[in-house]
Amino acid sequence: MSEFDTVIRGGTVVTAADTVRADVGIRDGRIVAVAQTLTGGSRQIDASGLLVMPGGIDSHVHLAQPSGEAVMADGFESGTRSAIAGGNTTVIPFALQPRGASLRQSVMDYHREAEGRAYCDYGFHLIISDPTASVLGQELPALVEDGYTSFKVFMTYDDLVLNDRELLEVFDCARGCGALVMVHCEGYDAIRFMTEKLERAGRTAPFFHGASRPQSVEREATHRAISHAELTDVPIMIVHVSGREPMEQIRWAQHKGLRVYGETCPQYVALTEEDMKGLNMDESGGKYVCSPPPRGPADWEAIWEGIRTGVFQTFSSDHCPFRYASETGKLNPKGRTSFRWVPNGIPGVETRLPILFSKGVVEGRITLNQFVALTSTNHARMYGLYPRKGSVAPGFDADLVLWDPNRRETIRQSLLHHGADYTPYEGLAVTGWPVMTLLRGKVVAEEGRILGAPGDGGFLRRERSPYALPAGAAAPRPLNGAMPAGA
Amino acid sequence: MSEFDTVIRGGTVVTAADTVRADVGIRDGRIVAVAQTLTGGSRQIDASGLLVMPGGIDSHVHLAQPSGEAVMADGFESGTRSAIAGGNTTVIPFALQPRGASLRQSVMDYHREAEGRAYCDYGFHLIISDPTASVLGQELPALVEDGYTSFKVFMTYDDLVLNDRELLEVFDCARGCGALVMVHCEGYDAIRFMTEKLERAGRTAPFFHGASRPQSVEREATHRAISHAELTDVPIMIVHVSGREPMEQIRWAQHKGLRVYGETCPQYVALTEEDMKGLNMDESGGKYVCSPPPRGPADWEAIWEGIRTGVFQTFSSDHCPFRYASETGKLNPKGRTSFRWVPNGIPGVETRLPILFSKGVVEGRITLNQFVALTSTNHARMYGLYPRKGSVAPGFDADLVLWDPNRRETIRQSLLHHGADYTPYEGLAVTGWPVMTLLRGKVVAEEGRILGAPGDGGFLRRERSPYALPAGAAAPRPLNGAMPAGA
Amino acid sequence: MSEFDTVIRGGTVVTAADTVRADVGIRDGRIVAVAQTLTGGSRQIDASGLLVMPGGIDSHVHLAQPSGEAVMADGFESGTRSAIAGGNTTVIPFALQPRGASLRQSVMDYHREAEGRAYCDYGFHLIISDPTASVLGQELPALVEDGYTSFKVFMTYDDLVLNDRELLEVFDCARGCGALVMVHCEGYDAIRFMTEKLERAGRTAPFFHGASRPQSVEREATHRAISHAELTDVPIMIVHVSGREPMEQIRWAQHKGLRVYGETCPQYVALTEEDMKGLNMDESGGKYVCSPPPRGPADWEAIWEGIRTGVFQTFSSDHCPFRYASETGKLNPKGRTSFRWVPNGIPGVETRLPILFSKGVVEGRITLNQFVALTSTNHARMYGLYPRKGSVAPGFDADLVLWDPNRRETIRQSLLHHGADYTPYEGLAVTGWPVMTLLRGKVVAEEGRILGAPGDGGFLRRERSPYALPAGAAAPRPLNGAMPAGA
Amino acid sequence: MSEFDTVIRGGTVVTAADTVRADVGIRDGRIVAVAQTLTGGSRQIDASGLLVMPGGIDSHVHLAQPSGEAVMADGFESGTRSAIAGGNTTVIPFALQPRGASLRQSVMDYHREAEGRAYCDYGFHLIISDPTASVLGQELPALVEDGYTSFKVFMTYDDLVLNDRELLEVFDCARGCGALVMVHCEGYDAIRFMTEKLERAGRTAPFFHGASRPQSVEREATHRAISHAELTDVPIMIVHVSGREPMEQIRWAQHKGLRVYGETCPQYVALTEEDMKGLNMDESGGKYVCSPPPRGPADWEAIWEGIRTGVFQTFSSDHCPFRYASETGKLNPKGRTSFRWVPNGIPGVETRLPILFSKGVVEGRITLNQFVALTSTNHARMYGLYPRKGSVAPGFDADLVLWDPNRRETIRQSLLHHGADYTPYEGLAVTGWPVMTLLRGKVVAEEGRILGAPGDGGFLRRERSPYALPAGAAAPRPLNGAMPAGA
Repeated sequence: MSEFDTVIRGGTVVTAADTVRADVGIRDGRIVAVAQTLTGGSRQIDASGLLVMPGGIDSHVHLAQPSGEAVMADGFESGTRSAIAGGNTTVIPFALQPRGASLRQSVMDYHREAEGRAYCDYGFHLIISDPTASVLGQELPALVEDGYTSFKVFMTYDDLVLNDRELLEVFDCARGCGALVMVHCEGYDAIRFMTEKLERAGRTAPFFHGASRPQSVEREATHRAISHAELTDVPIMIVHVSGREPMEQIRWAQHKGLRVYGETCPQYVALTEEDMKGLNMDESGGKYVCSPPPRGPADWEAIWEGIRTGVFQTFSSDHCPFRYASETGKLNPKGRTSFRWVPNGIPGVETRLPILFSKGVVEGRITLNQFVALTSTNHARMYGLYPRKGSVAPGFDADLVLWDPNRRETIRQSLLHHGADYTPYEGLAVTGWPVMTLLRGKVVAEEGRILGAPGDGGFLRRERSPYALPAGAAAPRPLNGAMPAGA
Repeated sequence: MSEFDTVIRGGTVVTAADTVRADVGIRDGRIVAVAQTLTGGSRQIDASGLLVMPGGIDSHVHLAQPSGEAVMADGFESGTRSAIAGGNTTVIPFALQPRGASLRQSVMDYHREAEGRAYCDYGFHLIISDPTASVLGQELPALVEDGYTSFKVFMTYDDLVLNDRELLEVFDCARGCGALVMVHCEGYDAIRFMTEKLERAGRTAPFFHGASRPQSVEREATHRAISHAELTDVPIMIVHVSGREPMEQIRWAQHKGLRVYGETCPQYVALTEEDMKGLNMDESGGKYVCSPPPRGPADWEAIWEGIRTGVFQTFSSDHCPFRYASETGKLNPKGRTSFRWVPNGIPGVETRLPILFSKGVVEGRITLNQFVALTSTNHARMYGLYPRKGSVAPGFDADLVLWDPNRRETIRQSLLHHGADYTPYEGLAVTGWPVMTLLRGKVVAEEGRILGAPGDGGFLRRERSPYALPAGAAAPRPLNGAMPAGA
Repeated sequence: MSEFDTVIRGGTVVTAADTVRADVGIRDGRIVAVAQTLTGGSRQIDASGLLVMPGGIDSHVHLAQPSGEAVMADGFESGTRSAIAGGNTTVIPFALQPRGASLRQSVMDYHREAEGRAYCDYGFHLIISDPTASVLGQELPALVEDGYTSFKVFMTYDDLVLNDRELLEVFDCARGCGALVMVHCEGYDAIRFMTEKLERAGRTAPFFHGASRPQSVEREATHRAISHAELTDVPIMIVHVSGREPMEQIRWAQHKGLRVYGETCPQYVALTEEDMKGLNMDESGGKYVCSPPPRGPADWEAIWEGIRTGVFQTFSSDHCPFRYASETGKLNPKGRTSFRWVPNGIPGVETRLPILFSKGVVEGRITLNQFVALTSTNHARMYGLYPRKGSVAPGFDADLVLWDPNRRETIRQSLLHHGADYTPYEGLAVTGWPVMTLLRGKVVAEEGRILGAPGDGGFLRRERSPYALPAGAAAPRPLNGAMPAGA
Repeated sequence: MSEFDTVIRGGTVVTAADTVRADVGIRDGRIVAVAQTLTGGSRQIDASGLLVMPGGIDSHVHLAQPSGEAVMADGFESGTRSAIAGGNTTVIPFALQPRGASLRQSVMDYHREAEGRAYCDYGFHLIISDPTASVLGQELPALVEDGYTSFKVFMTYDDLVLNDRELLEVFDCARGCGALVMVHCEGYDAIRFMTEKLERAGRTAPFFHGASRPQSVEREATHRAISHAELTDVPIMIVHVSGREPMEQIRWAQHKGLRVYGETCPQYVALTEEDMKGLNMDESGGKYVCSPPPRGPADWEAIWEGIRTGVFQTFSSDHCPFRYASETGKLNPKGRTSFRWVPNGIPGVETRLPILFSKGVVEGRITLNQFVALTSTNHARMYGLYPRKGSVAPGFDADLVLWDPNRRETIRQSLLHHGADYTPYEGLAVTGWPVMTLLRGKVVAEEGRILGAPGDGGFLRRERSPYALPAGAAAPRPLNGAMPAGA
């Protein structure tokens, strides 16, 4: 066997299927061997007592995205810095098409934002806000061909909402070009209706964000998106599912045999609607405002049930950071007048893995292998990065996180590396913590210290998702390799 | 890296999670390295164009088991010979306790049967037919301690049926000693009732075996077993599930959060109740008599739905072979008088993998990784053989099957190595076929030729199943490693 | 006891609860006594061998309604003539608000149409197509106060569709004024999308009407309407439900405790999508074009299941007649170019009772009492006509149908009295037929002969529906009397 | 119209379908007229402000039944005295066959008990505890022919339990002779297993009665009974359903199209498992011991949901009275040693109607008409007493209760007329109370005073239940008249 640049010794390698004591040999940024004992290696890393897992892939991250009144707290530099500190090696943020703009141009703009700034690898999902004939007829197919193989559509938000006709056209287009559609499922009209009603009643504190979009609103949009997908015969991924009602819609669709996938996030197993009360219904409740809103403990259990029974394939952060104590963040002047103007979103790229590990693995709800599937492998498979990313096996990029399963930490803003000035998880005690992150063989973070540099990360041209291929596609789904049972 | 006895070159390694181009290095019967390129090796095996998968583990096999009027067609020698020819490296047959007998003594008897005869490794599940105080109080816990960590109970069959009180006592005992209970779910009284009714009406042809135990009878027993497991707070594995109605009971239990697992078999996706008609309702229908009986195409789809949505963890053969043209087999004198005396069971250990591969992977219903999980990994995990068996990774026994995914074969009795004189799958065309089987590094079968010898296989003392541990067990489930999502 | 104008002797009186041998005494147009034997009476009607039931109330009838390219085949005169011939004594057609028009004015227009022309009593549902602030703020509440206590909204049709915001506003308004909302649940955008796709593919024959609005489109809109009703906390009636998928949505809502009601129609237990093929895909398929489209036998069973398990409260005709062989009907010039321009609707007010009686009562799917509930009592209760209409009991209007349960007829256009030139049920053999209809004590039809006159029927100012009252309304629901169990 | 013995004037007549202001004319013990105004009548009863409803029929009552260590507190005299005081006019107690005894002889014994003692009419259900060949082959069919057209079987209790084979034989026999089977669904073995476990742990207080038979035990038996009924194609009535889990089994069966009916009781909407704690876990908890045990508020809601959605057809008392402060009652010497010997059962025949009226009608959960259906009409229909009993219509027995819907009472032992020395509903405030009971035209109770005499009530030879007739029976179900929608 040829030589190694780096050998990771004595750790326990975890994949979506297996947990084995093994050394990992790396050369030229790739894993070349997994073996009982490996000798040699210019650099040797002692992993005894640690888990060696594929680096986290966070397939739902917002960076440098225009946000109405507010300014996002992370661009590519701070956002990916935070990501690697949290054990991630790939993020897939969104390239948003403003209405009226060219999709291609929008992508180019994001590339400029990212170029030379990223600490980890990145791809782009597109966000389609203006599905004109030329967008759907030319730009989107061409971009899919170029490696932007997934895109998101919104069923709410003034500047982003697509109506049903547009959704159907976009789904149909996705089917034609083999792109995977991600859907934000909340009903625009219902939210507007409730929001105005609440405002008329003077209920404008951040807490009422929850009441303005109750779970039935999310459930309805989920059912609607599923129905449109059924009509156009296209697979869809329902993102950031918050509770029992939408979860059961997805499960129902899966039982029916529809190709409907699901994603959930830390906020839906760790935050509650009550958090948005802040201190006595004050503005600090705004720290927890995101959409869909956090629900509460009964829905946490529903989310775990969905994870346990295979309803959800991916666990992402939906990192969407704003500063709290800032006029360009949660406390922007309009945001102070009503919850409706409080920027929707919370930071989370750095805390995703510890929260899932602690509440999932340590508390016995999921296995170590499910943890890897939910945080890395399934993201790679779902979004066309497999078999380059997502496992610890020969041929994969040497994107790794070394994880101390016994380390106890309390999440504090002071520990984190994002651009936000708070974390909604302040004070949350967790067990399990990343101690080292390697990106293509290079140690980029260690014990909270950033060792990498802006520009370490590169753009990932992604393959089409095997999950978005037509049912009877020429390239048979299984031979591309695919996700483990139920995951 | 140290040297290898054997290196498998150029294949595509498949685990329950991953599919990668890699070489596999073997030393002293174990896998020691999986790497992009391995040099050295006393023996080199060219696997180009082939899949390298963990050898099949068939956790539901009957060998040399007393069977009333009939004699089982396979003992350990022919049964395990057939197993390895079909790509398997481990079987777990049953050590049946006859009523009135000591459990320990029964186990010893089976050991005598197996000793020196097996072509592949083997463990034993126990069959408890007489749960006396001493069996439950002393013998069973001691045997669990000795590595017989699972046992089966029957809700039907004259000589085996346990009543509800016995089931509850046995479940409670399993909970205490951490054994995994497998349950044959069909209701004895209902079958007797229907059988006598059919016989009184002169409906004695093998075909009426189906009518004597319709799906509602299996569903009822499944619900009952689940309820008993809920009451005693013990995990159970429902074996050989035949159709939609019992499948939905298991799924309902899993959604409720009960630790209920499921197994299904080739006969429930490939045979139909109509097959038991034979040629114009004649005796040849007896070739397909097994319990639960095969159902038909609508239920095949329900079984696939169960596989797809994670209801089932294992796909086993329930190999239970009898000769057809024999007075000690299907045509025993009593068997000719009524379906009730036709021995229940069909051969299948050798055809399990090709049938699942062809109908599952090739026809696009499951992925390659699910195939590995369903045929090997999940069996190892479920029955305490992991991480010695069930994957292709450093430290595992070098139990491997090299598989040609494109080979087309037609299943014929003449191709098979079992002791039965027929196969119920005669004439079934499949794509995908085992071309080589290695047992702890030794090539034991190749292209249908048996290269191993009786005695190659050894007894496996099994750990307790991580799935049978109490919910709050000291040894946390995930750190033992566990099954992929959905299990 | 005082004297009677009319006594009906020797019949079997059927109400939604009871079936008893009794005479019925009528005075001044009202039932004044139900007794074992009644003497006296200026007129005596022999009902021996017949059922005496409350006259049918058809709460879903379109008469004299503007219909785009086409002209409706029935105005109030021929429509109500057809109704009484079919055993009905009350119809509730729709007063449609054209966009831009005043609701009050629209109602006045319909009154002019009806005045002096009706053979039976009638009320009006409103159709809200333009929910302006003044419509919702003033006109609608005033009209509800004036006895127009229910209205319909559409989720499809170019000229009628309301968007989600409008639906929510309208629902909210209904809640405020205690009106019952009826919802036509099919998704506009999905239908448009499919229609254009089919037209582009040259699939323009009437048969493709079915493909343009498959059941998932109806299911989606049903779920959406239910969700909007949940959000605004208002009861709704889902009308003309066609099959399993929307039926299961309504049942799910009812199990959840939402006040969601359901209506179905003869076409969903007697016609199929195949009927729209006509003769070799020709124009005659247009005879069966209605919305939602007829589905087929498997869905018939789902509809019966819904009836049997109490999902549906009313069985209406959705009478919406067009002539077939007419340039102002099904064969209008645009209609010949594509299914999209074929007027949606079929005649049915005269055949509703025989079809339900024959397929329901005679074939053993429902009881006689359910027949009465589904065709009369529940309509009266649901739409604020109870206790004036809907039963055979003292105090009720003497609106009666005398029914021969054993009469066999074959439905033929030649038997019918509507303005259409065909019936979609041509050739359907039924058992059970109306032999006499009495409107407020006057015999208006007998053995197919019309004895009544235009103007016999009068306008019904309806009370608010007890089913539309807020959950905690001052006037407790039960004391107003209400529907039998399960309804 | 001929003359009346009695006229009830000015009341509001309520049937299962209708609520009308009407007078009721009675002659020779039967209702002969219901009319707006009736003149004449030897006796006139002023019912203004009152509801005139069919007398309650309590189809689940135990009287004078042998009960192991204990003596039942009511024989026919006190039991029926209590019944009429509570607004009932018919009860159907059980004639229990002791093991080894002749069924016919057992019936004769009960007749002797009842003869000349009953204050109201009565029929008998049989209880089959010993289904020998002669019982099933001769006695039972003959007794059905003689008007004992329903019988109950038990899945628990030492002296009564039938095993699955016996249940199947009995069901099959019921199918043959058109009898309706009532099933007590709790699993014997599971209860024994739990009971012994609790006793070994010293948990013997009455409170542990609940833990000895949790809801899963009732659910399992319910599923089992349904499956046996499915196999034998026979309708069954699941009696005294206690909570969500068995309710959902029945609903599932009904949706499947199986003829499975359901009964529930006041204890399942008014008592809780906590009640059995008594005062600090003392013996007084025994006052609430019945089977299935009371569950609690969440299950109350499930029971109401079952009532609302038509799962349950009848609401009975399961009156099974024992004295509390008595060595032959709850405090029998063995009963003091363990909950297992506390007699199972509570009194309730007199409080059934007020509890359902108050919690059902007054609190807005059911309508007046549903109240009548659940307490009277559906019992008559289900058990072959219709159209003699169960409605207020010409031809029916003049069995009536005059009910003050506004009367407020607090249930106290001092108000009641049963033989028990307590009521489990002591202190429960209710609205609605019976003020007069008429049995075949005779006033037998008024304002809590008993005006009738032992022997007023007679034996009712019952017709076969229309609900027990085979699916394709010669006499078509609907023409016999049947239950309102949803039943």
